Amino acid sequence: MTVLSESLLSLQKSLQLLPGIGEKTAQRLAIHLMSNSKDKAKLISDAILNALDKCKPCSNCFLLSDTNPCPICADDSRDSSLLCIVENSKDIFLIENTNEYHGRYFVLGNLLSPIDGIGVNEIRLKELDLFIKNNCFSEIILALSPSTEGETTMQFLSEHISQFGINVTRLSTGIPYGGDMEYSGVSTLVNAFRRRYPIKD
Amino acid sequence: MTVLSESLLSLQKSLQLLPGIGEKTAQRLAIHLMSNSKDKAKLISDAILNALDKCKPCSNCFLLSDTNPCPICADDSRDSSLLCIVENSKDIFLIENTNEYHGRYFVLGNLLSPIDGIGVNEIRLKELDLFIKNNCFSEIILALSPSTEGETTMQFLSEHISQFGINVTRLSTGIPYGGDMEYSGVSTLVNAFRRRYPIKD
Repeated sequence: MTVLSESLLSLQKSLQLLPGIGEKTAQRLAIHLMSNSKDKAKLISDAILNALDKCKPCSNCFLLSDTNPCPICADDSRDSSLLCIVENSKDIFLIENTNEYHGRYFVLGNLLSPIDGIGVNEIRLKELDLFIKNNCFSEIILALSPSTEGETTMQFLSEHISQFGINVTRLSTGIPYGGDMEYSGVSTLVNAFRRRYPIKD
Repeated sequence: MTVLSESLLSLQKSLQLLPGIGEKTAQRLAIHLMSNSKDKAKLISDAILNALDKCKPCSNCFLLSDTNPCPICADDSRDSSLLCIVENSKDIFLIENTNEYHGRYFVLGNLLSPIDGIGVNEIRLKELDLFIKNNCFSEIILALSPSTEGETTMQFLSEHISQFGINVTRLSTGIPYGGDMEYSGVSTLVNAFRRRYPIKD
């Protein structure tokens, strides 16, 4: 017999839907919220409902935004000759944070992964084509992770975009700053050797 | 300029209220929920509101429960001569899971921690006195963590309960099963030597 009440169990199960939250953590969070944090619990519930109501993908680039078009699509000062394709909105926040890139973005929504049943119909390909046709990009940067899925997707997109005759690039790969060579995988090291560059660049 | 929309930022901030969830994880969860998991987000919000509505501390033992009295207080088959005092409801679920203890419980709500301003007014002392007076316990087990706060609380409760003339015990301390002596702290090892017992017990 479990003495965990039905409402606590439902709350636990719902929190387990979050990525990286297992059964034990979910139970701990549920009990925490109901023990001495009922005001926090209400805040979270309200914030979820508010975001569900207001936060939608931009109809141009699919960045999650409270406005449509999003602040980036609405910003005339951005470099409209550059397009950066990312997997999801989080990547845009990461890149904006660097203050390095000032062009436009497009959120693909997924990476190709045949093994998980994610094919070309599961990425925003038609929307991307339309976005490219409606703009005058001189370069398209594929800012996807160099994972198996990312590599597959970059290979596919590079071929697909060739029909538009636009220059396609990808982010540099190599040993990360602050990283330790000892913990770099073989393919990272092989790539780092092959793509080595003069110190006085 | 941040392009993180206001509603996403509010959701992130609210998720950061959860213990163990930092800024980065909260942002990842918020974007995940709004990207491809809007149905999950609604489920979580609903589960929080449902638990806020239904889940209350039992008026006898303060276990979080959808019913009052809770299933344990309402269960006549429990051993009503034993009382186990725990810090919070989670501990009751942990102990019930062992199927080792079949007495009653009392949820203290906090451990004494003068440095954090948690004194005797922040634990359910009056409620505990009333609970003890209204029952006939022959033994009270202090099932609190052997941390500084737990030890302080057990010391205090042991003296406080002496007025009722009831036998007070605590859970055994020592090297945990499956644990490695190498990683046991000095006080654990000292305690383990002092409390050693015959192998044929």
